Amino acid sequence: MTDSTAILPRKAAVLVAGSWGTALAAVLADNGWETALWTRNAEHAGAMNRERRNHRYLSGIELPEGLRATSDMAEALRGASLALFAAPSAAMREVARAAAPHLDEKALVVHATKGFEADSLKRMSEVLAEELGRPRSGIVVLSGPSHAEEVALRQPTTVVVASEDARAAEQAQDAFMNGYFRVYTNPDVVGTEVSGAIKNIIALGAGLSDGLGFGDNAKAALITRGLAEISRLGTAMGANPLTFAGLAGVGDLVVTCTSKHSRNWRAGAMLAEGIGLEEVLKRMGMVVEGVRTTKAAHVLSGQYGVEMPITEQLYRVLFQGKDPRSAVEALMGRDRTWELERL
Amino acid sequence: MTDSTAILPRKAAVLVAGSWGTALAAVLADNGWETALWTRNAEHAGAMNRERRNHRYLSGIELPEGLRATSDMAEALRGASLALFAAPSAAMREVARAAAPHLDEKALVVHATKGFEADSLKRMSEVLAEELGRPRSGIVVLSGPSHAEEVALRQPTTVVVASEDARAAEQAQDAFMNGYFRVYTNPDVVGTEVSGAIKNIIALGAGLSDGLGFGDNAKAALITRGLAEISRLGTAMGANPLTFAGLAGVGDLVVTCTSKHSRNWRAGAMLAEGIGLEEVLKRMGMVVEGVRTTKAAHVLSGQYGVEMPITEQLYRVLFQGKDPRSAVEALMGRDRTWELERL
Repeated sequence: MTDSTAILPRKAAVLVAGSWGTALAAVLADNGWETALWTRNAEHAGAMNRERRNHRYLSGIELPEGLRATSDMAEALRGASLALFAAPSAAMREVARAAAPHLDEKALVVHATKGFEADSLKRMSEVLAEELGRPRSGIVVLSGPSHAEEVALRQPTTVVVASEDARAAEQAQDAFMNGYFRVYTNPDVVGTEVSGAIKNIIALGAGLSDGLGFGDNAKAALITRGLAEISRLGTAMGANPLTFAGLAGVGDLVVTCTSKHSRNWRAGAMLAEGIGLEEVLKRMGMVVEGVRTTKAAHVLSGQYGVEMPITEQLYRVLFQGKDPRSAVEALMGRDRTWELERL
Repeated sequence: MTDSTAILPRKAAVLVAGSWGTALAAVLADNGWETALWTRNAEHAGAMNRERRNHRYLSGIELPEGLRATSDMAEALRGASLALFAAPSAAMREVARAAAPHLDEKALVVHATKGFEADSLKRMSEVLAEELGRPRSGIVVLSGPSHAEEVALRQPTTVVVASEDARAAEQAQDAFMNGYFRVYTNPDVVGTEVSGAIKNIIALGAGLSDGLGFGDNAKAALITRGLAEISRLGTAMGANPLTFAGLAGVGDLVVTCTSKHSRNWRAGAMLAEGIGLEEVLKRMGMVVEGVRTTKAAHVLSGQYGVEMPITEQLYRVLFQGKDPRSAVEALMGRDRTWELERL
């Protein structure tokens, strides 16, 4: 990396203080950035500063020195040359709208949120561009196989930063890259965003399959078909098919479907036990992006005329009361065919 | 499936009685095939017939009624319209040579062995074609995410049967397909064989990474890079790139790298503990194909001029005494770059 892409001053704002936002704020602080972690809840901000932990969303680590929590948006963004948006997809527009008046127009904008906006079905970079009043091309999305809990523990992790503007992607790479957090650039924003969103649906399905007592063979088949489903929708939306073979595609899909950390997987496993959706969401206590994304992808699948059998079965389980076992069996028992027709 | 592809009589021979051969013989028996399971060891054959179990390699299930073990090759192949070869790669040529004189020239030949022949670096379908004196095009390879233990328990599993001859592939599909064993056809023999072989190297690497205490993020990165490595070599050897996105590609790779059943993963985890290669192989008691395949792929990578960093690091650990931790760190710590250059 040449100096030309380095951003000065190294002052960053991270919105909001969920598990992923907190972990990425810690990466920036480790890299010498003076980092403000914004949460709308003043009490939560105070507790983080007092206890040096985010007990609510990422209790496993002590917050690094250069990180300070605040509930004051103006203070968080004052002098920031980098703003990282990591709000849940349902809150992204509101958070961006609140940030807009305080954001330096030259600040680099990065987001790390996986999902579509409900109803509008817009991608997160589209929502940010609208609310911040800047061109979509300069916005960067950060994605890849990266459980927040492991990043917080500084375990080796690799991610992608995607932007149509190569210089913006390289600035983000420069900001986040370090010995345990490896960052690759990619120009394909659509593919990176679509992969990150849809994999949460497949992870719900993997949780269902595991919860019903199906084995690793069945789950691997589901992951393979899930990757094909993601690629079909993404390509129809304008993505580069190669992105789905990369970290934000197959990498993130695998980690989300096979790891005990995954919220979407756990939600699927609970559904398999016959627990209703409302009760599952209550017990999780955190946002389960895959549930919202299933609704969005169900509509997108129709809009783009793309076959998405896993999404379709999950939609029936989540919103139409279909029995989870018959949904998974429907996915396993399709007609014999040539494999390449499906890919 | 139309009747035109059905084979009569439904009499099959399976060589040899390892865990995978035994599980596939049970699938055929479940489908109404009169199935002979050949082992070179008369005592082992006798024990299987007496106890109705393969205690040595797949103790978890009772052998189905239509399955009979034998150590007499002529008896095993008499009247067989389907011969399934599932010998370890190092024994394939010898087993095929022994089978050749007894094999009906019209019998369908299928193999389910993952690896290359040592020294010659030939694929298993090439070895079979040579020893059986028949064209390679009619030989079928069966592959996919399919732990023998789960297939034996009749847990839902999906596989691919690949052959240049579509009719042969469909005959194999017809023979193996049932309610728990879903079979897809694919014309790409090279891609299916290369995927099946190389994924065992990546699984060794995944075992190393897990054994060293790296997390799921690191393993997902390794799997993603492993898939790129498999695709690069396979495509150079003439495969269809789409095969790597399918069941025999990403599907098999994921199950082998993330499942507790995988021998290659277990061998890698032991190496991470500092146990030497000879001792690891002794403790495993069964063939660890990934070890031989690392040697073969190391040579193929040079022959085809394809970069294979995971194979290269594993080769150094297995055969040149490199410290496992520095090998995994070498894989994690490569230069920052554009992601799509690697795919």
